[in-house]
Amino acid sequence: MNRPNIVILGAGYGGIMTAVNLQKSMSSEEAKITLVNKHDYHYQTTWLHENAAGTLHHDRTRLAINDVVDFNKINFVQDTVKSIDPKSKTVKLEDGELNYDYLVIGLGFESATFGIDGIEEHALTIQNINSARKIRDHIEYNFAQYNLERGEREDLITIGVGGAGFTGIEFVAELANRIPELCQEYDVPREKVRLINVEAGPTALAGFDPELVEYAMNRLEEKGVEFKLGTMIKKVTEDSIIVEKDEEREEIKTKNFIWAAGVTGNSIVQESGFETNRGRVPVRPDLRTPDYDDVFVVGDCAVIMNPDTERPYPPTAQIAIQMADTVAHNLKQMVSGGEKLQSFEPHIQGTVASLGHTDAIGVVFDDKKLFGRSASIMKKAIDNRYLMKLGGVGLLLKKGKLDMYH
Amino acid sequence: MNRPNIVILGAGYGGIMTAVNLQKSMSSEEAKITLVNKHDYHYQTTWLHENAAGTLHHDRTRLAINDVVDFNKINFVQDTVKSIDPKSKTVKLEDGELNYDYLVIGLGFESATFGIDGIEEHALTIQNINSARKIRDHIEYNFAQYNLERGEREDLITIGVGGAGFTGIEFVAELANRIPELCQEYDVPREKVRLINVEAGPTALAGFDPELVEYAMNRLEEKGVEFKLGTMIKKVTEDSIIVEKDEEREEIKTKNFIWAAGVTGNSIVQESGFETNRGRVPVRPDLRTPDYDDVFVVGDCAVIMNPDTERPYPPTAQIAIQMADTVAHNLKQMVSGGEKLQSFEPHIQGTVASLGHTDAIGVVFDDKKLFGRSASIMKKAIDNRYLMKLGGVGLLLKKGKLDMYH
Repeated sequence: MNRPNIVILGAGYGGIMTAVNLQKSMSSEEAKITLVNKHDYHYQTTWLHENAAGTLHHDRTRLAINDVVDFNKINFVQDTVKSIDPKSKTVKLEDGELNYDYLVIGLGFESATFGIDGIEEHALTIQNINSARKIRDHIEYNFAQYNLERGEREDLITIGVGGAGFTGIEFVAELANRIPELCQEYDVPREKVRLINVEAGPTALAGFDPELVEYAMNRLEEKGVEFKLGTMIKKVTEDSIIVEKDEEREEIKTKNFIWAAGVTGNSIVQESGFETNRGRVPVRPDLRTPDYDDVFVVGDCAVIMNPDTERPYPPTAQIAIQMADTVAHNLKQMVSGGEKLQSFEPHIQGTVASLGHTDAIGVVFDDKKLFGRSASIMKKAIDNRYLMKLGGVGLLLKKGKLDMYH
Repeated sequence: MNRPNIVILGAGYGGIMTAVNLQKSMSSEEAKITLVNKHDYHYQTTWLHENAAGTLHHDRTRLAINDVVDFNKINFVQDTVKSIDPKSKTVKLEDGELNYDYLVIGLGFESATFGIDGIEEHALTIQNINSARKIRDHIEYNFAQYNLERGEREDLITIGVGGAGFTGIEFVAELANRIPELCQEYDVPREKVRLINVEAGPTALAGFDPELVEYAMNRLEEKGVEFKLGTMIKKVTEDSIIVEKDEEREEIKTKNFIWAAGVTGNSIVQESGFETNRGRVPVRPDLRTPDYDDVFVVGDCAVIMNPDTERPYPPTAQIAIQMADTVAHNLKQMVSGGEKLQSFEPHIQGTVASLGHTDAIGVVFDDKKLFGRSASIMKKAIDNRYLMKLGGVGLLLKKGKLDMYH
């Protein structure tokens, strides 16, 4: 048996789609394929903000890897990756070691703290099922405590969110919908609760059309969100954040601060000696690392430039899923001795930011703007299409957002 | 208008039943009746352990005072009692003061710490809706944290309960039923979770027939409860309890410690200068205080002796509800110039301890022992009878435990 060993690290969007593509295009005789993941489930990172807000149960967001990956064809190892040695072609796991002939790195993102004092220790971040579930419970716990305090402890029922990018805005929108429920569950008067979004840049949803941004901000302000734009977070403590605008500082008392302002590639990649640019590997057009012909990178650990804007493409699920097609194709070529590797070409079909429930904003087909219900339907359609691609109709029915119209 | 002022403090079992009885037996011309309560709802203290375990939502346990008290007949004041001056016949509230001609004290219980180091600061107690809800969320929050820790932090998923009396056992039974749900919700392996009940006395459910106690302990041990009988709690810290048995000390790591071992009367009563015995007023047979002819005490703030056993009756809902009948009768007598006050005679119809869901143990009709489903049905029947008495069929249908047989 001289089958090459293909090892895929991570079962996020890029990793699991690579595995699913390979199990379709390759026979067991062609290669031995191993998928390594910390958990026995895959989750949709783009839904985690709903789990964190408590508007969607996390079991809707995750699915058993077993449900979409055929464990007869693909060897699944549930373990945590500690490091990669591309010279000896080995991967160190918490409980063992794996050798590879071809490696696919899909280890996802980490929060970037930008060196802000106290974020590491005191901020909550939306990173995975565990941390999203914790945020939901953290907020609930503080609401539960409010009526047990003698004085009025507004810090318990003030929620601060750092960052008005995609995740920050989508999360704040879900929270705005959740707060009335929290008030009812915990006997807290709605008017006492504050939901504050702090953004260093001059606008929310930077990069979106100003008309769409205005729509989003108006809708969220109507629901009680307070925006603090052009405002830096200087420090985060156990029960407050200190912000600064125009050289004036303000302390906002909050026991609920969620940092949603920045992500970077998994630090294991850089620590393993791969060339990175702000934590991501500047991959070749065929999605291999600059230095190693046998190592591919998919998803948030990779960075590719958009030649039109001369800026990197943002790390999205859409691009990770498309990368997986290219990686699977190129692996098939290499294993079968083919020479012609495909270059990755992203096809941005549209970008939609959910504003919760039946509301959203977005751009599709390059310049068509969508608002409200039509944008929301488009958002759910995109999510449903992914589930179809990943696991067919069965998975769509099980995990899809089928309440598209209400 | 020379109507006397009747003021009832507290809308627990004794207070609210006194109010409901008076609104039936007295006309508005006879007396002005005022009911004071901290919240605008009444709750069933005997169900709080279910709310705390998370097996029953607290909205099932509470009901709007408005639903059973006619605010046209009874003046409702939502406020917190700070102190009573029986000499000047005034009650100080947080936001005002009330004068009375007749007073009914129904201010309920407080946890008794027995001077154990750290209980005040670190133990959770089942006292009211707010604290029960907090316990539910506290346990959930620690379970949510478990998978975010690198090392195995068993303290997060160990639950300690102090006391194997009525509340302690009923609470542990609900928790034993809840833990499988918690394990599923938070991805925690069941075998890692510990549920430990610590009791200083030599037996659980002291006072119950040994056969019933054995049944209860066997059932709970089957569900994974660890009993530590004859074991003193010496100290409670933020993340542990220190227990001692036969002069050997053991530290049990737990972030979830609930103290369910002792209650005493509301400290306001003693602080207001009433004669008390271990925090309760040793009332006369007509339920007035020893010193004041115009002050009645109902429920947990009163203590009456059982002449058969020469020990005080335990403070139960059953007795509080019966006391309210006597107090209402005697007030009617006094207001209408009658001389003959009734003496209180408790009628113990039965005592049933729930073991969760469809299981229980109990004694009815003096010496008939009940186990399992029949005891559970009896327990629910007792609870339902109270709701009937308090608010009629409408309330029974709204808040009753109507799933009696499964």
